[in-house]
Amino acid sequence: MSIQERLLKLRERMRDNEIDIYIVPTADFHQTEYVGEYFKARKYITNFSGSAGTAVITADEAKLWVDGRYFIQAAKQLEGTTVELMKINEPKVPTIEKYLADTLKEGGNIGFDGRVVAMGTGISYEKIAAEKKGKLVYQYDLIDEIWEERPALSQEPAWILEQSYAGETTADKLSRIRTFMKENGADLHILTTLDDICWTLNMRGNDIEFFPLVLSYAIITREQVKLYIDESKLDKEAKAEFAKDGVILRPYFEIYEDVKSIAKEEAVLVDPARLNYALYRNIPEDVKKVEKCNPEVLFKAVKNPVEIENIRKAQLKDSVAHVRFMKWLKENVGKIRITEISASEKLDQFREEMGNFIRPSFEPISSYGEHCALMHYTSSPETDVELKEGTVFLTDTGAGFYEGSTDITRTYALGEIPDIMKEHFTLVLMGHMGLANAKFLHGCTGINLDMMARKPLWDRELDFKCGTGHGMGYLLSIHEPPAGFGWRQSAGAPAVLEEGMILTDEPGIYIEGSHGVRLENELLVCKGKENEYGQFMYFEPITYIPMDLDAIKAEMLPEETRRQLNVYHETVYEKISPYLDNEEKEWLKRYTRAV
Amino acid sequence: MSIQERLLKLRERMRDNEIDIYIVPTADFHQTEYVGEYFKARKYITNFSGSAGTAVITADEAKLWVDGRYFIQAAKQLEGTTVELMKINEPKVPTIEKYLADTLKEGGNIGFDGRVVAMGTGISYEKIAAEKKGKLVYQYDLIDEIWEERPALSQEPAWILEQSYAGETTADKLSRIRTFMKENGADLHILTTLDDICWTLNMRGNDIEFFPLVLSYAIITREQVKLYIDESKLDKEAKAEFAKDGVILRPYFEIYEDVKSIAKEEAVLVDPARLNYALYRNIPEDVKKVEKCNPEVLFKAVKNPVEIENIRKAQLKDSVAHVRFMKWLKENVGKIRITEISASEKLDQFREEMGNFIRPSFEPISSYGEHCALMHYTSSPETDVELKEGTVFLTDTGAGFYEGSTDITRTYALGEIPDIMKEHFTLVLMGHMGLANAKFLHGCTGINLDMMARKPLWDRELDFKCGTGHGMGYLLSIHEPPAGFGWRQSAGAPAVLEEGMILTDEPGIYIEGSHGVRLENELLVCKGKENEYGQFMYFEPITYIPMDLDAIKAEMLPEETRRQLNVYHETVYEKISPYLDNEEKEWLKRYTRAV
Repeated sequence: MSIQERLLKLRERMRDNEIDIYIVPTADFHQTEYVGEYFKARKYITNFSGSAGTAVITADEAKLWVDGRYFIQAAKQLEGTTVELMKINEPKVPTIEKYLADTLKEGGNIGFDGRVVAMGTGISYEKIAAEKKGKLVYQYDLIDEIWEERPALSQEPAWILEQSYAGETTADKLSRIRTFMKENGADLHILTTLDDICWTLNMRGNDIEFFPLVLSYAIITREQVKLYIDESKLDKEAKAEFAKDGVILRPYFEIYEDVKSIAKEEAVLVDPARLNYALYRNIPEDVKKVEKCNPEVLFKAVKNPVEIENIRKAQLKDSVAHVRFMKWLKENVGKIRITEISASEKLDQFREEMGNFIRPSFEPISSYGEHCALMHYTSSPETDVELKEGTVFLTDTGAGFYEGSTDITRTYALGEIPDIMKEHFTLVLMGHMGLANAKFLHGCTGINLDMMARKPLWDRELDFKCGTGHGMGYLLSIHEPPAGFGWRQSAGAPAVLEEGMILTDEPGIYIEGSHGVRLENELLVCKGKENEYGQFMYFEPITYIPMDLDAIKAEMLPEETRRQLNVYHETVYEKISPYLDNEEKEWLKRYTRAV
Repeated sequence: MSIQERLLKLRERMRDNEIDIYIVPTADFHQTEYVGEYFKARKYITNFSGSAGTAVITADEAKLWVDGRYFIQAAKQLEGTTVELMKINEPKVPTIEKYLADTLKEGGNIGFDGRVVAMGTGISYEKIAAEKKGKLVYQYDLIDEIWEERPALSQEPAWILEQSYAGETTADKLSRIRTFMKENGADLHILTTLDDICWTLNMRGNDIEFFPLVLSYAIITREQVKLYIDESKLDKEAKAEFAKDGVILRPYFEIYEDVKSIAKEEAVLVDPARLNYALYRNIPEDVKKVEKCNPEVLFKAVKNPVEIENIRKAQLKDSVAHVRFMKWLKENVGKIRITEISASEKLDQFREEMGNFIRPSFEPISSYGEHCALMHYTSSPETDVELKEGTVFLTDTGAGFYEGSTDITRTYALGEIPDIMKEHFTLVLMGHMGLANAKFLHGCTGINLDMMARKPLWDRELDFKCGTGHGMGYLLSIHEPPAGFGWRQSAGAPAVLEEGMILTDEPGIYIEGSHGVRLENELLVCKGKENEYGQFMYFEPITYIPMDLDAIKAEMLPEETRRQLNVYHETVYEKISPYLDNEEKEWLKRYTRAV
């Protein structure tokens, strides 16, 4: 079926259900960033395959809102679909809420599957419908009704994370969560977000593309935990472990019925950004709702010493793999046939050689030349292209090791590259180093520090249309709240940067139709000196891969950046050389030389 | 009466009125930053004379909360008073709210004069009292009851600002305000803030220390304006002008009664940060309140072309006066007797010579040596000291010209100064220049940019405990919201920086007992290039006074700052030299030479 035919069928169902506007976000029932095949409804109805975007369909319009990472990719994938691209944050592009308010007719209804929309978002739609004296229809999954051969829900097994990986017992985590519940006067705490559940229960699995998460819901009370899960995922050991911690197993979908019987004298902790709207509506109206961000969000963002130790190992392994890949790429480009996809596979091969490799930790971006301008480009057999000298190659990929997940970007010069690319590379490097070397007082968030990465670009009236970095999950998700680097206030205040948080530092420049540059390391937030001014903080880069000196215009570097780069390269050599043979060492020495 | 005796008397009144905790903020009935003599209740009860601070008195404790600018000054002035200093934002120092909540006994009452507390603050006190099943007693001014020989309310005349100064008619301003009211569904708009009233009605006066403001309230409806004012302040012309714009005069205090009769079908626009609590409580409960920031706050922050033109003139005049002062200071220190106070008077004398000078635009800070470490030091005959070579002199003063108010800080080396002072001067200069030369995308606020000023300091584990800059009023107040530079999120999100706003850029370093450095210019927010990334913005410094090259360690300057400084000094010479004689020109040439 073509997209146009699918839209036709969807509109029939909309008419049958008296729905005037139907919303299809990119989400599963758990607000997970990547979703299993079963949940790719937005891709099914628009053809856009990126990881974020929301489709809105009316009787005669179909629109797709995507953010700056995906403007170029979405424009291509929407060709011929009749779906119109709406570029988020661009001048004159309304927000979805504004569009709904402007478009919904008097008495009109807004529809969506209430399980794939967050409570807070659902409530904002409620208000828009109420203004027009219409209502929300959230009980039906209309895409399901038209989707023939929809893939099944994942049935992959789950496993328990040992203490040498988890670093904190479920009992201790539950104790912290219950203290938070008590402080906030909540008797029940409903969890729908998979990373929060998996972190709390030290459980991992394989239900989500790339992320080692398990499809489940949980309800935590002061005494017990109800875990809603397909029981066949769990082996005897896991069940025994859960029993020990007071975890009671319930069928996956039963939570929707269970929450209907919450007693009215109980107070429920709900996170409007995380609980799904259908569950929220199923809680009896007279039950008190305490609206708070899930405590697990901050708890898991601050990594414990065992987690940090493991993440360091993962970063070191991935750095060694990257150095070998870089050498291989530099030595072979133009000599043997290398394509975007084969390069990506080669990098994963080096990763596998490091041991304990599970799989890529997110959808790999392996892009050549003008493809590098597509922030979240995914190479497919149709778009794959051979790497040749004279332009850049960008790899933004991650390794899911058992020791932790990585998310690393390097841009490499293939042979001699044009001056403008070197200039852009050098500006991005200046921004990257500026942020990585920031010293700041405790209390700062990424909004305070983002400018450190953007300054060299803004000084030249350049920019990149996305945040500069995000929190990193530990064997959970890749874009992990609540901390991040970005400058827009509208994104909500990100969390204060705390010791033990790990974030990415990834400024870039993207020139449509020509090239793109991005450089990304992980930074560990550390405590520095405490004095009369407060607690100073700094970042320790834990990724050790050369910044390609073939792509740098050294004469552009301010003295400060030059010193920072040389210090970083010294560290790279020191950390990585012990794992290399003599020839590799010699090569690395050259690519980490002082400039 | 000593402070201890005053506290004793106050506590008697507290007992009589069954008040357990009494709060005395620094405020008049209008939330003005500086207050007339009549309103200095907080100084009366604590002895602390700074411009900001809140006293909280219980039966056995008296505490004063002040911000970082005043830690040192307050500590001195509280000596022997039994009033305890509470340093805002310091570790382990509770907020006032936290202290109230911890201290108020079950069933206890909190008291304050409801006219000097903002609505939002009053409501937060309400909640604290309600938690303890106590109540607020806001109807009495207990300080008034014990204050013998309290000064009278100001009775200075007011005047109408001509169009060549105002640049926009009251009719046009009212039209913009009424559009805002309509958009927000408000029929009435109560104004208590003097700068908002004076801006709207193009009126100025002399009721507040330093600021040309008029004691008044206003109620704007869709058709008319009621101005609550002592009618004797107005001459015939002013009354005629007001009549033309539908402004009806009412006695100053009558507003408290008038708001009681607002009809319940009317909606009132109230600004919780600006309306006073007593007025808020006098509005009938069943009247709908639309809570919004006063629209005048943003309107007046964005200066119109006539205002900008005038402000440029004022800055130019004050810069010429400063250059003459700097030359005089450099040539005479150590030769003739100069003290903090006489230096300040000398500067004002140079200002007067420029013509159209009204008076200082705020309390002058003229400090020598270790006094420079007191951010808001005021020299008095008791503290005044002679200037000698070997340390620094800091002047943070402003001129109230009819063309506009200035707020300028320079720190000067007196003779040869120790290396550490030069280092600190150079770091502050680097921060000052970093912010002044920032380029940024429209949408940024001061939270995004503050780091540009702080970076050189934070890199060396130094800081200054206040914001980096504030909006500047045009013949109104000196610290004008809603824009400002600062890094703490808790201060509330400052406004997006808009073309036409004018802010100060004033980083500093303060070393208790030794010295202090601060450098302050005014910056005009300008539109730069617009391209695919958005609208770029930049700052134009409109203050033209040398940064003392005698105090700079040029070898510390990064190449970028060195270039910025040289460009700035070139501009200073270009703008100022036409007003100087040959000898002055030659002198200025030397002090604006490239380094």
